[in-house]
Amino acid sequence: MSRGSERLGLTEDEHYRERAQRKKALVDRRIARATIDRGVVVVNTGNGKGKSSSGFGMLARSLGHGLRCGVVQFIKGSFSTGEEAFFRRFIEGADAVLDYHVMGEGFTWETQDRTRDIAAASAAWDVAARMLADPGYDFVLLDELNIALNKDYVSVDAVVAALSARPERQHVVITGRGAPDALVEVADTVTEMRLVKHAFKAGIQAQKGIEL
Amino acid sequence: MSRGSERLGLTEDEHYRERAQRKKALVDRRIARATIDRGVVVVNTGNGKGKSSSGFGMLARSLGHGLRCGVVQFIKGSFSTGEEAFFRRFIEGADAVLDYHVMGEGFTWETQDRTRDIAAASAAWDVAARMLADPGYDFVLLDELNIALNKDYVSVDAVVAALSARPERQHVVITGRGAPDALVEVADTVTEMRLVKHAFKAGIQAQKGIEL
Repeated sequence: MSRGSERLGLTEDEHYRERAQRKKALVDRRIARATIDRGVVVVNTGNGKGKSSSGFGMLARSLGHGLRCGVVQFIKGSFSTGEEAFFRRFIEGADAVLDYHVMGEGFTWETQDRTRDIAAASAAWDVAARMLADPGYDFVLLDELNIALNKDYVSVDAVVAALSARPERQHVVITGRGAPDALVEVADTVTEMRLVKHAFKAGIQAQKGIEL
Repeated sequence: MSRGSERLGLTEDEHYRERAQRKKALVDRRIARATIDRGVVVVNTGNGKGKSSSGFGMLARSLGHGLRCGVVQFIKGSFSTGEEAFFRRFIEGADAVLDYHVMGEGFTWETQDRTRDIAAASAAWDVAARMLADPGYDFVLLDELNIALNKDYVSVDAVVAALSARPERQHVVITGRGAPDALVEVADTVTEMRLVKHAFKAGIQAQKGIEL
């Protein structure tokens, strides 16, 4: 029992209820203050795990709400085979609600060809820019765009301009290490996925469902 | 062009290829070293966004691979209505592959009843412990378990013991702020989702597909 609750002569349960009521009042006040209702830009960056998988979790949420979704993958292999198999059912068929583009030519250390990498990133950005200009998309996931920005394959000024001019209710999620400052500045929600430890560094292979 | 490539008399493209080859060799060596093949424990913690949504992204991957999955939600409301709507189709029907338990009684500042909160957390842990002992589950997501550990509603020693004794190929993903040190120690992959900024603090309501 804390000194505060002893001083007030409260039982542990009463003290718990009192703290819970204070917390509820705080949360209620914050919710009451959040009155703006519009599309948001979410950026997942950092060296840790979870940037893309969190983007896919939000994609699942959006599909659950019946939102019309677009995905552009800037680096091949960043979508796992599990995600591809899972989301495939929403892409194919007459009632498709997901527009899914795998644009990357592969990781740069696999292609080893700068000209091809730049061309692939530019082509991916063209598709993304069309989505960001189209109110037919409620949710757009630009997976690993930060990598292309970092390597200057795509211009951060062009991305910031497209985000600023997009439809008011459209959500955009951008993932990848090393998000540029100019992008962080215009984003609404930014998370740095910080690596504390990773199984791979301990000699454990990439696992189906977790990385693949 | 870097001084190194000038010194060697390489063009920019040759320099790019050389760096890509070095990077590929490094990645290939790391992959060759990762020879252990077993289930992993993944922990998503920190105050930023993406802990639960990343867990759901891994759930989507696992379902894509045909893994048999279990989910226990320790705090009601931590699963969004979008996720519920989306994953519902995998839970119901004869060919269900997902065992999904919503166990929390609601956020503690909503219930304001300590005894009820402890009972709800204990009941949720009982379901989780059965999954962790059952080789019929390939992937288990324990959403917001860290909150229950932090409040001592569930014993961290019991969780560590159950993780250590679980089937060798079973993956477990545990989310929530404030993961206890003892859990971080036994986990294989740990990410701290660090809050850089959040739309909610700027007065923007929780958005469907993003938070809901």
